[in-house]
Amino acid sequence: MTGAIAYISRDSDGPPWKAVLEAGLGPVDFRPLGALGRLEDIEVALAWKPPPGLIATFPNLKLIVSLGMGVDHLLADDRLPAGVPIVRIMDEGLVGQMSEYALFWALRHHRDIDKYAASQRARRWRPEPFVDTLHRRVGVMGLGAIGQDVARKFALLGFPVAGWSRTPRTLDGIEVFAGRDRLGTFLGRSDILVDVLPLTRDTRGLLDAAAFAALPRGAYFINIARGGHVVDEALLAALDSGQLAGAALDVANTEPLPADHPFWTHDRIALTPHIAGATNPRTASPAVIENIRRRRAGLPLLHQVDPQAGY
Amino acid sequence: MTGAIAYISRDSDGPPWKAVLEAGLGPVDFRPLGALGRLEDIEVALAWKPPPGLIATFPNLKLIVSLGMGVDHLLADDRLPAGVPIVRIMDEGLVGQMSEYALFWALRHHRDIDKYAASQRARRWRPEPFVDTLHRRVGVMGLGAIGQDVARKFALLGFPVAGWSRTPRTLDGIEVFAGRDRLGTFLGRSDILVDVLPLTRDTRGLLDAAAFAALPRGAYFINIARGGHVVDEALLAALDSGQLAGAALDVANTEPLPADHPFWTHDRIALTPHIAGATNPRTASPAVIENIRRRRAGLPLLHQVDPQAGY
Repeated sequence: MTGAIAYISRDSDGPPWKAVLEAGLGPVDFRPLGALGRLEDIEVALAWKPPPGLIATFPNLKLIVSLGMGVDHLLADDRLPAGVPIVRIMDEGLVGQMSEYALFWALRHHRDIDKYAASQRARRWRPEPFVDTLHRRVGVMGLGAIGQDVARKFALLGFPVAGWSRTPRTLDGIEVFAGRDRLGTFLGRSDILVDVLPLTRDTRGLLDAAAFAALPRGAYFINIARGGHVVDEALLAALDSGQLAGAALDVANTEPLPADHPFWTHDRIALTPHIAGATNPRTASPAVIENIRRRRAGLPLLHQVDPQAGY
Repeated sequence: MTGAIAYISRDSDGPPWKAVLEAGLGPVDFRPLGALGRLEDIEVALAWKPPPGLIATFPNLKLIVSLGMGVDHLLADDRLPAGVPIVRIMDEGLVGQMSEYALFWALRHHRDIDKYAASQRARRWRPEPFVDTLHRRVGVMGLGAIGQDVARKFALLGFPVAGWSRTPRTLDGIEVFAGRDRLGTFLGRSDILVDVLPLTRDTRGLLDAAAFAALPRGAYFINIARGGHVVDEALLAALDSGQLAGAALDVANTEPLPADHPFWTHDRIALTPHIAGATNPRTASPAVIENIRRRRAGLPLLHQVDPQAGY
């Protein structure tokens, strides 16, 4: 198995990916989208939001690599070949960026930066009342690689941190709430809520009016996961009523967000274009190379996706 | 020695300080500014920006406690009684807040938040070019308790960190530059410069035109130390020329900053009113209580200040 590697993405990272793969594997027959050549040659597909049905046209495909840590973009293709294993990247660079992004918006809320910016505009030297970090409880939804890193870094800064996950886990210094039954209790103690869940059947629309109502009044919401978790109208209502103090959204139900969507102009929403974590070929490639080697040698794969669970 | 404790500060923290001291010491004869009573009774002075000459009027004073980690506010009083030891608070809560503040502004610069805010106003979904955390070198000036915490937390987030201090030190994972001779080299590799130095004879005006010119072009400056380190005109010129991309200033040469000062309205300056770290009686009191006990028992003190060195 030393066939071609297809790069199925509209991003411009093709050349860097070719370079890092060749550094580990030697010369690679690298085929970007639009120059796939003979489809029979393709044995590995690196994919980010592939056109539905395309991957099914590779008759000799042996491995699918999701270029994002989430795989909903891939599983949305209902014609994926059933027998081909899917692995996802595990990118410590991307994980660290996600944590940076969450910390940034949490600190902005925690330290009243918007009020200080207003004071600066008014040339007013006025300290705001101080909130002890110990009283700002952070809740992290999703405790995979990203959620664990986010939780750990908030804890290192002195915030009380809890996490919520589908199945029970033990994490040093982090209170873990597991299962749908415990969601309300978890939300009720989360002054800052960070969403890093995968998008699955179980999590689509999870953050609805009831979920936002379960948060403490004046909570802050950070979504670095998927827009599909959020019922947009419920989020807007919670912001407008003051139930939520604000939200930082890196993702949306439709991306790019349509120009007429109310998120763009809401004064309590900070919006960024899905940049919280960018896959970095430098940090993501070692596990991809290892998985290609393992697949060639018939060994068990790393970070393999369970299509039934959806992650 | 169980005399009165004077609280010499215009801040409103008097009642919390009385409560935390009594929790450790039992009933305390606590005398706020304006109700000092018989000056002969005062044996301990907790002080923040004391009126010059006031402390010299306490004939039986045994201990001066600076309510800030910096002591320039106290040493500015040239009538301090020479034989009375000075200790400063060592407040892990305050230290953590300083790090939070520095991280916030560094991440804002690192993650191009201002550009994303402009894109949101324009309803434009456009990722900015990505800068790897490994290529954003952080430099921390001053490696006392605060500087060490700041440096350690930046390093935990994956930034390459160096520190500069008066005397050589060894810190795990942090490259240390010591002494005036190494200042230019240190500045030349600092894409983000965080100032946490004490204000002394040696550091006043240290950040002048030559220092800003020594930074890499487009560097970002964060001052959580003292405004007296900065030559304001040199900072403004470095911002206007693009040598500096921006500055976050929590301190100023004159505080409150006069309403006509150009820092208020400069579009590359974020200004906050000396709130990066607030002394928190909860976290600061244990060492204060311990020092009062030690002074009563004639034992060596913690965190004692060297008035000659200025910190």
